[in-house]
Amino acid sequence: MVPDTLKWNEGELSLLDQTKLPWEVSFVRCKTCEEVASAIKSMVVRGAPAIGVAAAYGMALARLAGEDMLEARFLLMSTRPTAVNLRWALERMDRVVGASPVAVVDEAVAIHREDLNINKAIGENGANLIPDGANVVTHCNAGAIATAGWGTALGVLRSCVRSGKRIRVYADETRPRLQGGRLTAWELREDGIDVTVMTDGMAAWLMKREKIGAVLVGADRIAMNGDTANKIGTYGLSIVAKAHGVPFYVAAPMSTFDEGLSDGDGIPIEERDGSEIRSPYSSKLIPDDVPVWNPGFDVTPCENVTAIVTEMGVLRPPYIESIAEAIDRRPKDERGCADR
Amino acid sequence: MVPDTLKWNEGELSLLDQTKLPWEVSFVRCKTCEEVASAIKSMVVRGAPAIGVAAAYGMALARLAGEDMLEARFLLMSTRPTAVNLRWALERMDRVVGASPVAVVDEAVAIHREDLNINKAIGENGANLIPDGANVVTHCNAGAIATAGWGTALGVLRSCVRSGKRIRVYADETRPRLQGGRLTAWELREDGIDVTVMTDGMAAWLMKREKIGAVLVGADRIAMNGDTANKIGTYGLSIVAKAHGVPFYVAAPMSTFDEGLSDGDGIPIEERDGSEIRSPYSSKLIPDDVPVWNPGFDVTPCENVTAIVTEMGVLRPPYIESIAEAIDRRPKDERGCADR
Repeated sequence: MVPDTLKWNEGELSLLDQTKLPWEVSFVRCKTCEEVASAIKSMVVRGAPAIGVAAAYGMALARLAGEDMLEARFLLMSTRPTAVNLRWALERMDRVVGASPVAVVDEAVAIHREDLNINKAIGENGANLIPDGANVVTHCNAGAIATAGWGTALGVLRSCVRSGKRIRVYADETRPRLQGGRLTAWELREDGIDVTVMTDGMAAWLMKREKIGAVLVGADRIAMNGDTANKIGTYGLSIVAKAHGVPFYVAAPMSTFDEGLSDGDGIPIEERDGSEIRSPYSSKLIPDDVPVWNPGFDVTPCENVTAIVTEMGVLRPPYIESIAEAIDRRPKDERGCADR
Repeated sequence: MVPDTLKWNEGELSLLDQTKLPWEVSFVRCKTCEEVASAIKSMVVRGAPAIGVAAAYGMALARLAGEDMLEARFLLMSTRPTAVNLRWALERMDRVVGASPVAVVDEAVAIHREDLNINKAIGENGANLIPDGANVVTHCNAGAIATAGWGTALGVLRSCVRSGKRIRVYADETRPRLQGGRLTAWELREDGIDVTVMTDGMAAWLMKREKIGAVLVGADRIAMNGDTANKIGTYGLSIVAKAHGVPFYVAAPMSTFDEGLSDGDGIPIEERDGSEIRSPYSSKLIPDDVPVWNPGFDVTPCENVTAIVTEMGVLRPPYIESIAEAIDRRPKDERGCADR
């Protein structure tokens, strides 16, 4: 069974340590906002929705400790630049920072609970897109442990399996940090879902040799035209999917949309340390002095995205209309301050 | 300086141990055909042209030891299924197996020397395709150490640099065995050529962000229509190159053409052990019990190949004509028995 990604218990946030998986199921306990920021930065907790929830609890811990809330906000905001859910969660918390510590904690708990429900809804909405018996390709980990639970892309697959469909997953290992090989493979096997890991360069050849029903990925930020930032390698995967006529689905909560961006050009792309390529998890693969390039994300243009699965339903092109329409339908109290 | 891939000295074949690079420059000494076969299988020596030369010396060692030449041939042939240069070299050796041990050794030495000259010619022929100041993407290692010297794809780049062109290389790390990150980066840096390593999933994003002058790869087998088998990941790279309007060049000796195959469908694809993905070079990346898929090669369809650079010149589409014409022009004594 997959343990909870985040657990709140009397002024302490316990995080499943994703840097130790799949070798060890252990938890990092955060008692301060600073410890939460550090856990986000070091990827103890990762995945855009889970980062948002963790940041909300970070604000709650700051309020409980009587810290300067603007400083706390700045610290959390500076941890990871690409995932917009982080900003969204901090904007949600902005509404209550002046209130009592109890009210601040309550808002963080609400964001946490909502995220689980949102993922279940994404799962239900997306399951119809995946035919029984399908082979599905995934990239990175958009699973239960990237969220409050259930998962976005993997939540769709869980909903398929729960409704009786037979699904076979081919998981890109997702270099450099191997979230596919380590996290996706682990969490799907914990739930008894058929998964095979391949290297990132194999997806095209797989699509040539076997019938693939869908590519299903998560997202870290989606512009208003549907351009989608996600883990590096997603853009190339979208190109090979298109070349083979394989539908390419993005599964993400509404909090992933950035209303301030008309297209993907403005999405900040995090460049991460080269050691992730050269010696991931202390495995010396490539010498330390070899020059490397390590962008953490890329942007898939909307024309490569067949549909975007959200808790509000399945959005189809033209996204500039379907995304705006879904945002308009959304209950006001689930929206961040930036939502208009 | 890059040491010799293979060295023949008085009945002994010394092979640069490519499983130890870049950490250690060491050599494996083979005194028997069996030791050569084992070195090919374990990838102490790798790269289609180098495998061909090593196999020729394997036959020479068998002849010197008075072994059964049919058995020796079978043993060598069974080492790696995809690289056709292996078969080509054994067919070249077939002509002399009945002759004196000296004659057999001389033929192996001739194949070895020819390969170096062939690579120099490929380099000269291909250099005109690469503009001064170009960024070039490579996959796997089609370098000096994949051949008798100079290299095929990397030989073209060496010829560019020698003629004064400024070249910047982006090398795919090439999972699972990391030939790009370990071998290509090492050999280019030994020769002072600018190289940056990226993971295989980054090439598409690089092409979106920077002007890339060419993709340049080697080949393990080319069918008569130009369909090209090469290291897994090459096919996907050809698709993303096409999507970005980047020319995709294959550099390979004439011995890479398989006259028995009209297209790539018949090319045998080696499936290798899953441990290469899970724990390459003993680095535990993914648990041993996770199911993996590990094809060693893929086939790039001829329509994705802009040109094929050979020692006979640069071949252009329609390949069905240009390849046949190049084979016809080829000196008879450089051809294997299967050549007609």
